Amino acid sequence: MNPARKLRYAMVGGAKGSFIGPIHRMALRMDCLADLVAACFARRRAANLETAAELGLDPARVYPDWQSLIAGEKGRVDFVVVATTNETHYAIAKAALEAGMHVFCEKPLSLSVKEAGDLGRIAKRRKLVLGVPFTYTGYPMVKLARDLVKKGELGRIDKVHLEYVQGSFRRPGKRKAWKSDPRIAGPSCVVADIGVHAFTMIEYVTGLEVRSLLADLSAYGNPDGLDDDASILMRLSEGAKGALVTSKVATGEENGVRLRVYGTKASLYFDQEDPNKLVVRYPDRPEAVYRRKASYVNSISPRSAAASRFPAGHHEGFVEALANIYDEFVAAISSGAARDYPGAEEGVRSMRFVEAALASDRKGGRWVRL
Amino acid sequence: MNPARKLRYAMVGGAKGSFIGPIHRMALRMDCLADLVAACFARRRAANLETAAELGLDPARVYPDWQSLIAGEKGRVDFVVVATTNETHYAIAKAALEAGMHVFCEKPLSLSVKEAGDLGRIAKRRKLVLGVPFTYTGYPMVKLARDLVKKGELGRIDKVHLEYVQGSFRRPGKRKAWKSDPRIAGPSCVVADIGVHAFTMIEYVTGLEVRSLLADLSAYGNPDGLDDDASILMRLSEGAKGALVTSKVATGEENGVRLRVYGTKASLYFDQEDPNKLVVRYPDRPEAVYRRKASYVNSISPRSAAASRFPAGHHEGFVEALANIYDEFVAAISSGAARDYPGAEEGVRSMRFVEAALASDRKGGRWVRL
Amino acid sequence: MNPARKLRYAMVGGAKGSFIGPIHRMALRMDCLADLVAACFARRRAANLETAAELGLDPARVYPDWQSLIAGEKGRVDFVVVATTNETHYAIAKAALEAGMHVFCEKPLSLSVKEAGDLGRIAKRRKLVLGVPFTYTGYPMVKLARDLVKKGELGRIDKVHLEYVQGSFRRPGKRKAWKSDPRIAGPSCVVADIGVHAFTMIEYVTGLEVRSLLADLSAYGNPDGLDDDASILMRLSEGAKGALVTSKVATGEENGVRLRVYGTKASLYFDQEDPNKLVVRYPDRPEAVYRRKASYVNSISPRSAAASRFPAGHHEGFVEALANIYDEFVAAISSGAARDYPGAEEGVRSMRFVEAALASDRKGGRWVRL
Amino acid sequence: MNPARKLRYAMVGGAKGSFIGPIHRMALRMDCLADLVAACFARRRAANLETAAELGLDPARVYPDWQSLIAGEKGRVDFVVVATTNETHYAIAKAALEAGMHVFCEKPLSLSVKEAGDLGRIAKRRKLVLGVPFTYTGYPMVKLARDLVKKGELGRIDKVHLEYVQGSFRRPGKRKAWKSDPRIAGPSCVVADIGVHAFTMIEYVTGLEVRSLLADLSAYGNPDGLDDDASILMRLSEGAKGALVTSKVATGEENGVRLRVYGTKASLYFDQEDPNKLVVRYPDRPEAVYRRKASYVNSISPRSAAASRFPAGHHEGFVEALANIYDEFVAAISSGAARDYPGAEEGVRSMRFVEAALASDRKGGRWVRL
Repeated sequence: MNPARKLRYAMVGGAKGSFIGPIHRMALRMDCLADLVAACFARRRAANLETAAELGLDPARVYPDWQSLIAGEKGRVDFVVVATTNETHYAIAKAALEAGMHVFCEKPLSLSVKEAGDLGRIAKRRKLVLGVPFTYTGYPMVKLARDLVKKGELGRIDKVHLEYVQGSFRRPGKRKAWKSDPRIAGPSCVVADIGVHAFTMIEYVTGLEVRSLLADLSAYGNPDGLDDDASILMRLSEGAKGALVTSKVATGEENGVRLRVYGTKASLYFDQEDPNKLVVRYPDRPEAVYRRKASYVNSISPRSAAASRFPAGHHEGFVEALANIYDEFVAAISSGAARDYPGAEEGVRSMRFVEAALASDRKGGRWVRL
Repeated sequence: MNPARKLRYAMVGGAKGSFIGPIHRMALRMDCLADLVAACFARRRAANLETAAELGLDPARVYPDWQSLIAGEKGRVDFVVVATTNETHYAIAKAALEAGMHVFCEKPLSLSVKEAGDLGRIAKRRKLVLGVPFTYTGYPMVKLARDLVKKGELGRIDKVHLEYVQGSFRRPGKRKAWKSDPRIAGPSCVVADIGVHAFTMIEYVTGLEVRSLLADLSAYGNPDGLDDDASILMRLSEGAKGALVTSKVATGEENGVRLRVYGTKASLYFDQEDPNKLVVRYPDRPEAVYRRKASYVNSISPRSAAASRFPAGHHEGFVEALANIYDEFVAAISSGAARDYPGAEEGVRSMRFVEAALASDRKGGRWVRL
Repeated sequence: MNPARKLRYAMVGGAKGSFIGPIHRMALRMDCLADLVAACFARRRAANLETAAELGLDPARVYPDWQSLIAGEKGRVDFVVVATTNETHYAIAKAALEAGMHVFCEKPLSLSVKEAGDLGRIAKRRKLVLGVPFTYTGYPMVKLARDLVKKGELGRIDKVHLEYVQGSFRRPGKRKAWKSDPRIAGPSCVVADIGVHAFTMIEYVTGLEVRSLLADLSAYGNPDGLDDDASILMRLSEGAKGALVTSKVATGEENGVRLRVYGTKASLYFDQEDPNKLVVRYPDRPEAVYRRKASYVNSISPRSAAASRFPAGHHEGFVEALANIYDEFVAAISSGAARDYPGAEEGVRSMRFVEAALASDRKGGRWVRL
Repeated sequence: MNPARKLRYAMVGGAKGSFIGPIHRMALRMDCLADLVAACFARRRAANLETAAELGLDPARVYPDWQSLIAGEKGRVDFVVVATTNETHYAIAKAALEAGMHVFCEKPLSLSVKEAGDLGRIAKRRKLVLGVPFTYTGYPMVKLARDLVKKGELGRIDKVHLEYVQGSFRRPGKRKAWKSDPRIAGPSCVVADIGVHAFTMIEYVTGLEVRSLLADLSAYGNPDGLDDDASILMRLSEGAKGALVTSKVATGEENGVRLRVYGTKASLYFDQEDPNKLVVRYPDRPEAVYRRKASYVNSISPRSAAASRFPAGHHEGFVEALANIYDEFVAAISSGAARDYPGAEEGVRSMRFVEAALASDRKGGRWVRL
């Protein structure tokens, strides 16, 4: 990393104690990618100032709201990280882009396809980089999976089966998350919050496109609330099909993302809770267990090897996956070239997925095109 | 086992070299349940005689066809095991029941709900025992799962997710199985062959009833042939929902039966390829891994403990699961009382499941009541 | 199995409720190897008669003691299964051999090398088959392991590391087993009871010979009693070394037999509690997970494939492993040829191992030759 | 972290491309603990300058050798990280301490007990903090293990069994590491390089002291070279015993650190390659699988919870473990109080372990006191 090129960024959201904000900062520190120079961490003044003080930010660059941050930092930062609640993503990202800032915005990128499309168009027109942290695509073994598929190791893909299950809504004493409040989360909870990760992973690994879907949504934890569980059937390009089970009420599950891709020649299995490993199964030879950064990985997937920091056996986890996405996002900013990170297209497509799921469920389970 | 009560049985099908016939015989030998005294193992004379010779059967009781077996053995055997191809199940089982023999018939019990219902009615009227080897319900840890659910350990059940995946149709050099030939297999391949196991396990473990389903069937291996892959959504009694993924083209899978049941208080996980273990996950305490025959199992599930032969750590497998079903089947014959084995009801309901899946798929994926 | 050749056997020990006796009978029934025709199951008359009645034995062939059994059954049975406590093995086996009966005797074969050697010599002189159930060598994946080593897949072997750990002596309410009573068990508990399994497995899989050892024994559960825990270092032929950890006080362990063999080119891992799988690891390619009876096994190890009954994915367990040993034992009787079962040689060598371990420990941990 | 207190550090060793240097830097960035302000990354001028440039170091603070670094940075940095080869640790650490700098020095801390003792005495006399990265003690689940033992969950400890196995010396094309060159590595390879990690983990988790040991060392990869494989028996305080198997020629292993601790009431298992999990086994209830940062962890082990950054299910790995050690090291510098990090005492004891192992092996395997 050439220090002359070290970028500066501002953050909106992500006060101390929030889940994702500190992870973004750690991910950006991991490879010395960019310096945090300005922020509005929270609308609550105390939380905002306290977080800023801990991070050693110049108080003059700590803003009471995102509007003043964008006004004040225009031309002074390279990019803005948006780590706020869903309902604000669109306005903040839009304003930042219009101020000429590159944007890295949490998922869901917006509350609708329309909004996501707007952001994509603005970014494109202004030649700005828009990144979205579909973090699971950042794992080295997910990149290896993608490359194995590309090389034809699996043959033609018939079926994709993915679980993304959490039990968070069944934890006692867990206050109702804002994620189930439609005013903040938007029209969907489980599909928009984690289903989009699953969807993006499927398209990333297989290289196929989800063409239509049929969704059965539930709201077990709160019958009047947003969806907290979904089973979704999919039809993908080239004749493949898919099934997705995703939930916030999968009691006892932590963050179970388990992907299975079945091809005519082999199948693969990836478990996000064991992320340094990828299993490939064949009809006629022993199952192959690939390990992150093992000697043989580089010849199959240089990008997987490059996305690994430590030798095999010295495990990497979630923050490295996010750092990998930031590496590519920052490289895209620096180089102006296309890179391997989820961006506007993935943001828009994942919103199409959300809207199609809601529409299918409203119709009592009909096939809906994306 | 009182030797005075040791039963005698005849077998139709199951010649040497077939998959399931020898397993039935071993399962029946395991606990000295019954003696094989008569058979028509195959229509091919050589195979029939050779199998009989190896098993030391009296040549006078080896028959060229099932019709003569039933005629010749009426009153001389307690029960008949039907281990033939699907299209013959109904006729053989019907004839045997009408001859006053108890029947243990392979799944699918018949080619239609109507036929299965007939068999159930005949058995009931004649007070005969009709057993069907939904073998996975015979595992001690599946019985423990059922009892944990019954005791309320999981709370109210929200969701059931089951995979039953095989890669057998993707094995090179694998000749096209009769299972994909509609003249022999009947109207369905994957749903009738293994989907029925999954369905029966779900109802057995949860104690709930599948009320309706929506199926998406595929025939990847043979576009003109029977279904070899299915994704099925389900609605169960008491507001629960389900998702089933089942396949014969899941390349590299052997016999992956993985059951997840999510309740409001806990969830459970059972993997048929690791059958001496049951995992229960809680929102607020460590995951509990139960082991077959461990000291604590008996107080929770005497039936699970009773269905285990060897101490914990000395693994049991598939044949013991089938032997457990035979134990209960034979006990039902001997005692005349209801016992814990899958029978006519499960046979009929599983055929309803098959017909509903076919109907739903024909309609392009609509909800169909069972 | 030609019924004309079906053998007849007698059993000493193994009354209903004992651990190992019923498993022997099931194993012998599994493949229709031999018929039980005579027995002395227990010295307690009630237990003896009750077990005999359940098994349908002719009361005239149920004996009050082993002496009368041998006298009464001389010339009437092919072999005797000895499933009694350790201190009686030698006398019974000796008498049976001298009466011209083949013998299958539980481990440890005797209480000393000398006794074991005697039995071996008598068997050899009289051309009788002496089998010893080192059951873990009967697993198909252990046979595959042996064949992979033989073919050179691992290169030269450097190191063997084996755990054989049980927690049985730490189970509350567990009465002190006879296994820790020197009058019944002999001079050693954990080494003679399960250490001998470990030792035999090591020599079976590697094809190497343990030349010397250094043992550190403990008696945690009963400081005045026999060894219930041992750590043993070994030197094997061809420069290999070994380490064995074995215990009866490994709280919470069930029957943990975990074998690791490290060669210059690859290593292998086998876990008896997951016995349908064998893992081979390489320096420069993905780990290979072999599955029992998978299509590729036959070309590598026909004996592994032949020792498997059910298709991959339909798990086999402990009883099948013992049945595999009986298959070979019975074939040795029928054919008069050498076969793949543990016999006199393994029985003698394992007693050398026990005596060397005791001697080494008595000397405060010195290297002792076997 | 109060920015007013943010520390400054210098690094010796750790040029770009080295294994451990970059991990130290990342670990220090993770929680914004300290800024790197000076360095001598390598004696090779180009590597030194290039690394410095990438990290944006002031060229005036990039030194050609460690002597000039210490001279030039005296009073300007809070601590020095020593990430050089073994033979230089002592001189650098000594000089840094004598210059009044706190020191964080790679293991082995020195080439002898005497040297390590010197460093400890100097640090103590000058009230300086000396840290040693026994990184595995930094894992949250290792801290949980320690706290479970402390609370008596395992009862009295009988036995500890640890594997620390790598296959790195069996990787084709792997150039002979300096770790096997006695002029650089010192008198031991595998024991000094990774055995010390194992030893420290054992004492950290159990709270017991290794009193004596018996070692069997090998040099498989290079018969004239340093040890690359060892089996070590141990006697610990309070009557416990231990067994350690450690290797650099465990072909196919990556960084297998598998710890088993057996107590009278329960046992525990930790696998460094699955570091977000801790397994506790009981004689009479289901195995308990603890997950990092799960809700129940905090009440058992606040230090484990505090050492976790991300929610359960979002995995942490090796760098977080090292960051945890740095957190405590920096807190010790800032607060002057004792904290939970491995330091001089562990550094000295681990060298006693190395010397005892070498002495025991030289004597052909005798018990040697530490």
